[in-house]
Formats: sequence, C-alpha cells, structure tokens
Amino acid sequence: MSDLETWFEKNRTQCEADLFELLRIKSVSADSQFRPEIRRAANWVLGQFTRLGFAAELIETAGHPLVFAQSPAVPGAPTALVYGHYDVQPPDPLGEWISPPFEPTVRDGNVYARGATDDKGQMLTHVKATQAWVETQGGPPINLKFLIEGEEEVGSEHLTGYVAEHREKLACDCVVISDSSQFAPGQPAITYGLRGIMYFELRLTGPRQDLHSGTFGGGVTNPANALSRILAALVDDRGRIRVPGFYDDVVPLTEQERAGFAKLDFDEAAFCRGLDVSETTGEVGFTNLERRWARPTCDINGLWSGYQGEGAKTVLPARAGAKFSFRLVPNQDPKKIAVALRKYLDSLCPLGIKMELIDMHGAGGVLVPLDSPYIAAATRAIERGFGNAPVYIREGGSIPIVTTFREQLKCDTLLLGWGLNDDNTHSPNEKFCLADFHRGIRASAYLWDELARI
Amino acid sequence: MSDLETWFEKNRTQCEADLFELLRIKSVSADSQFRPEIRRAANWVLGQFTRLGFAAELIETAGHPLVFAQSPAVPGAPTALVYGHYDVQPPDPLGEWISPPFEPTVRDGNVYARGATDDKGQMLTHVKATQAWVETQGGPPINLKFLIEGEEEVGSEHLTGYVAEHREKLACDCVVISDSSQFAPGQPAITYGLRGIMYFELRLTGPRQDLHSGTFGGGVTNPANALSRILAALVDDRGRIRVPGFYDDVVPLTEQERAGFAKLDFDEAAFCRGLDVSETTGEVGFTNLERRWARPTCDINGLWSGYQGEGAKTVLPARAGAKFSFRLVPNQDPKKIAVALRKYLDSLCPLGIKMELIDMHGAGGVLVPLDSPYIAAATRAIERGFGNAPVYIREGGSIPIVTTFREQLKCDTLLLGWGLNDDNTHSPNEKFCLADFHRGIRASAYLWDELARI
Repeated sequence: MSDLETWFEKNRTQCEADLFELLRIKSVSADSQFRPEIRRAANWVLGQFTRLGFAAELIETAGHPLVFAQSPAVPGAPTALVYGHYDVQPPDPLGEWISPPFEPTVRDGNVYARGATDDKGQMLTHVKATQAWVETQGGPPINLKFLIEGEEEVGSEHLTGYVAEHREKLACDCVVISDSSQFAPGQPAITYGLRGIMYFELRLTGPRQDLHSGTFGGGVTNPANALSRILAALVDDRGRIRVPGFYDDVVPLTEQERAGFAKLDFDEAAFCRGLDVSETTGEVGFTNLERRWARPTCDINGLWSGYQGEGAKTVLPARAGAKFSFRLVPNQDPKKIAVALRKYLDSLCPLGIKMELIDMHGAGGVLVPLDSPYIAAATRAIERGFGNAPVYIREGGSIPIVTTFREQLKCDTLLLGWGLNDDNTHSPNEKFCLADFHRGIRASAYLWDELARI
Repeated sequence: MSDLETWFEKNRTQCEADLFELLRIKSVSADSQFRPEIRRAANWVLGQFTRLGFAAELIETAGHPLVFAQSPAVPGAPTALVYGHYDVQPPDPLGEWISPPFEPTVRDGNVYARGATDDKGQMLTHVKATQAWVETQGGPPINLKFLIEGEEEVGSEHLTGYVAEHREKLACDCVVISDSSQFAPGQPAITYGLRGIMYFELRLTGPRQDLHSGTFGGGVTNPANALSRILAALVDDRGRIRVPGFYDDVVPLTEQERAGFAKLDFDEAAFCRGLDVSETTGEVGFTNLERRWARPTCDINGLWSGYQGEGAKTVLPARAGAKFSFRLVPNQDPKKIAVALRKYLDSLCPLGIKMELIDMHGAGGVLVPLDSPYIAAATRAIERGFGNAPVYIREGGSIPIVTTFREQLKCDTLLLGWGLNDDNTHSPNEKFCLADFHRGIRASAYLWDELARI
C-alpha cells in the first residue's frame, strides 16, 4: 500500500493536468453544435484506458458514443462496474462565469470549469486510482469494468438500451458511481437514496401570429396567461403536487431516517446565506433535507413567451412554452404519473389554445440497502482515503441509470460522492475541490483493495 | 361644392402620386440608421403646407422633428387641429413582403407599402382635402392647424411635452385624427372610445444563481414557479382581474352601447378562422366586441426564465420575469391602480423571492361624448364622403396622445378611421385601399364644411 501512497504523491500534478485537459473539451450533450467536442471527449477517455493496457472500445449509439473498458481478469475476485459520464451541462448563462467555463482555472484550491465535479473530475478519480494500481502493482486486485457515457445530462437515452442488451458483458457484483456530493466539507458520505425524475416541455399555441394586445386583448385566449394558470395549478398552497394520484405510491420516510437526517449537522441559516435567499419554502410538514432528499417536487426549469427584449411591446403572443420537471421518490412510477399528468393538463387547457406536452425523459427513484458487504467496504475505503468515516445520506438529484443497473444487472450501486453541495453543478462557476479530487483517487484505490478482501 | 367634386375627380392620379412619393421615404423612427429618411419625410410634409401658402415650420425636438402648419385665419370660424404622423414601423420581417415595403405597389385596388394606412395614407387625406379647398375656394372655411409628428411608433416621447408647453399655439375646438379603421369594408365608423393602458415588468429573483433542480428542488423557492403563481392570480376563472379595487371606477357599458355593438355585423366564427383559433375566451358575461372595446383586460406580453434552449436542463432558475399590461377603460386611474397592483403583488410574493415591479407607462382610457356637434358634423361629413353613414365603435387599443390633447387642450378628438382591420399595420404587406384614400379625402373636405356650419 505504501507504493500506492508514493504514487499518489508523485502523480498529483499529472493527475490534475489530465483533469484540466478533459475539462477543456466542450462536451455539451444537449446542443448538437458541440457534437465534435463530445466525440473528442469520448476518445480522450478511451485513451486513458488503452494507455493502461485495458481492453477498451468506443461503442457507437444512435446518440453520443459510450466508452467501455475492462481490466485484465483476476479469477475469483469480485467485479465492480464503474459508471461515469464525460458529457456536461450547457454552460449558459455565460456572462455569470468568473473564468470561462472551458478554461479550467484554479482559485482557492478549487478548479473552476463546466464538468469539474459533474462528472469529469469525479469520474476521473476511479481512472486515476486504477492507473495507480496498474503502475504500482501491475493491475487492480479485482475485476474492473468501466462504462463512461456521453448522454447523462440529456437522459441517458441510449445507455439504457445498451445495458439491457449487454447484461453479460456488464455483469458485476456492484456498481460504483461518483457523481454526487459529500455531506459537507470534511464530511464524506455514502448516498443510499436518489430521487427519480420526469422532465417535460409544454408548448401552447394561440393565434396564428403575435397580435396587438390593444386591438385583440380580452377577445383572444392569451397563451402566456394560459401557461401561467396551468403551471400554477401544478402545485398547491402547501407545496403538494396536484396531479391526481401523484402521491399514491410514495414510500414514506421511516422514523429512523428522519431521526438520522435530524442528527446531521445541517445549518439552514447558512444554507440560505449561501444561496442569498432570506427564507425557503417547500412542502409543509417536512424539513429542508427531507424536502430535498426524500419528497417529490415540481420545478419549472424554463419559461418563454412573447417579447423578452428591452422596453414595452404591446403584443399578445402567439405562443408560450415551459420546461418543467418532477423529482420522484422511490416507488413512484414515471410512466403512470406521465399519463395522469397529461390528463390533468388536458383538463386545465383553456379554449382557443392548442397544447403539446413533450415527455423528455423519466426515471424512478432508488433506495440501496445499507446492510451489504459492499457498503461496508466502501465505508472503510472512504475512511482510509478521507481520514473520516462517511455518513449515510440521500440525494435530491437523479441518476436514472442506477435504476437500470438494478433492474438489468441485479446489483446495487455504491454512490460515493466526492463533490460538495456548493459545487455549482448545472450552474455558472462549477467547481471541484482539488484536495477532494486527490482524496477521491485514494478512496477509490482503497475501495479496490477493500472489495478484494470481501 | 361641385368645384370640390370636380377637384377630387381631376386630382385622383396626382393625389396617389403624392402618396406614393411619401411612401417611398423610409421614415422608420425606431431605427437610428433611418434618421436622414425621417428628416426627408418631415420636409416632404412641410413642403405640402408651404405649397398651400400656409404658415408652416419644422420644429426640432430632442428626437425627430414635428411639422406644424396653420391655415390663414377665418375669424369667427371654429378651429380644428389635425394630428397625424409621418414615421412608420420597422418593415421586418422583410422576407414576408410580397412587394418591397418602400416601393408602393398597387394590387387589387390597394397600395401596399409600409405606412400606407399607418399613418401616411390616412394623414395625407386631410392635407389633400385642405389642398382642394385652397385650390377651389381660396382656403378652408375654418381654422386648421396641423401637427404631424415623427415619433408615434416609438411612444410620442417629445410630442407630449411639446403639447403641454404650447397650449395656446395648439388651441382648438376639436382634434381630428385618422389613424384607425372603419368597422368593416364599406362600413365607415367613428371611434368614440379608446382603452387606456398600464404596462409593467415584473422581475423575481430567488437564489443568487441557477441551481441544480435535483439537489435543491423542494428546498428553495423557485422564482419561475412563483412567477406562474403570481401571474395566474392576476385574473380569476371568470376572466376578471383580481387586483383589489380594480373595477371601482369602471364606467359600465350602457344598454344603448351594448345594443349598438350587438347590431354590428361582427362574425365571430370568421374572426376565429382569421386568427386560427378554435374558440375564444374572456370575461364572462360580455361579447367579444365588448371584451375588446370596453372591458379592462390583463395580458402577459412576455415571459422568461431559466433554460429556453434545446433539450432538457435540470435547472432551478435564479430569476424569472414577465412583461404584462392592463387595458383600462375610461375613468380607471392608472396611478391608483398601480398602487393597488403593487400592494397585491407584494401579498402574493412568496418567502425567499425578491420582487421588483417596474411601472413602464400608463395612460387612461378615452370616451368622447356622442352628443356633441363635432360628432354630428363628422357623421354628416363621412356620409357625404363615403356614401354611407358611420357606425359608432370603440377600439381596444390606446392612443395616449388623445389623453394628452384632452388634458392639455381641453377638447375632444374625432377619431375617423379610413383604414380596414386587415390592413396589416405593424406587419408585413401593410396596405391601404385607394378607394378609401379618395373617400377619406372627400370626407375630410366635407368635414371642414360641416364644422364651418356649427
């Protein structure tokens, strides 16, 4: 193990240089103009594995390519499948970045760049940990498979089918994913629950063209007014979603979980200060952590209609649209809820408006049992890598592929987040703490060791 | 009067040639690159009056110049102030014009060009009618003042102050404006009511920056959700505005007005077909014409928040905004309602959201009494010019300068529209029916006669 420690020390700069190289690639999956950059990122990741002498391949899909790699077989040892993604969210709004999103810049021990934490930096910890094993021990002590995709930020559309069709190739004892956060700085965590997601775009069309709001106002249904009414009707005054049947299958929080969350050192006043909000709102009867980790929500993600420029334009818009999404909790079925939502929205749509609801993607929530040997191994590895035992938390975000892995590969996922809650994922000035990058590399390397001992 | 009729016949072609010459001048007031053309148009209009031997001047403002002209005094006769504008809307989108916007082209008896009806063609009818009097009778039988501005399409910013500062110079018994429409082809109208307007921009700010809707959704007030709820609360299910006290000063439609509107040949099915909407909605208990002409309304003119691009971005936006406006009916006070609105919105704004309400502009509605000698004179003049008695209508739009004239000059305005509702004002393929151009010249000439007889 001292060889590994020496490797970590000697390769700090090189590991960071490799991360920065990857961060410079503008692999935005949502926007087709970035297609060549997506491919560059995939090839860059592929190169990491071929350099280690692993069997590695670029797998073409109808969307962005997958990278798959496999370490030399260690007979009798368990198999871990590392999942990660090389694609990133769009960097807008660009004007709010302190340093450009694709020019990684170090400030106060953090690297700032789109994808720094989500997920290029975190994903790379497992690659570098494996490289440490290869370069010091000739190879990792277990069987490792890597599956790194380029469509995580747009719903992992093609990965899902790929996993279903390649269950044998991907067969493993556990999946390892680092695409989430520690509980707090210096307090690593294992995430045992994730929320699901359903993402929709709603498009309303009124008159054939924009009209003069004086001549026509009051006599024609205004699609922007209609949109506001429809969206406002999604959530009631107590923060509960009004889609009929929405809560039917919700798994309630156990008393044990609520007690565990309450014991965590969460400072709501500091949370508000960090976000520059005076107070927060949410579903009545739940704490902030409960609301974000274990209760379903509905958020409008985008809105548009009519005139958005400077000054006043007295237009009655022809069209209005919104993107909105629900976060689901374990056991809620996105398909069933999508049907109920469509019916509910139909009932809300006023006369004179044509409505189009586009179901963009959906995935259920996840709960991992805490009493498995894999969780125990991960707990020890994190303690060795971070010098601190992890706490067990849930997370409000969604990693839909975790559901797929459970369904298709029949195994649980270790969600080992090296990021921090204020990393600005999906926001301007995304960052990743470089100390955590290196701690993550160590924890990952020790995880291979701990899994070898199961 | 037969001299006038002879003049009209003899000068048809010359009147059209003059109109086309004016239409060729690209006097777009919104775009500074057209500044020289604006000045050319102003000088062209000035030339019309100097040719008649009128005292005429170009009045410089901080924006585009005004043209003022005055006929030789006719002691004891009433004074009419003709208002019009020589500026036009931008011609975009250029690709949708069948013939170029500044090359007047005649098709099916209409002249197609930007400004054909709004307002060069309509404004010119009064100039040509006056020319007819000068060339046949030595001058008009009343005192005429002309005030033709170049900033109507950008808010008449400098005219308002000019009127307030030159009340004596502009003093008159009535104002005459032709910048609106007949009720239908072959059915001229006198517009005796206009709606007022209040235009606002609402800006909501939540967290300091866009957040991940998974990590934070449910635990932070979403400004886009808040915006939808606030905007939805502006209007109730019956199409009534919910700002407390909003209807306190509304002048209800009289039974006579409602009966008059009901008698008008308005085809709602054709109206819907024209706009490509299946049905319309609006305030319960009122007809389509009543809703658009004589009832207050609230329309969202613009909406924005979060991610508006392609695909899905799971963002909890930092900001959301809207432009929205109310159309007011006569006697509603924009200032009083703005205070009530601000208070109402404050009560709706949820915790954790900062709200900014920007009052962009406001003007009251206008109602001209129908039992005045000026209306009677205009009625007879239109009957003589068009061969058809006018109907009395109201109009949903606002002409803020009419309010200014009433406040500053203490007189009512005759709104005599020679255009048609499908003239494509502010749109590609703006047109003006040439037969109506000539009927308008005759009606104007007879209006000077009828006013002389009051």
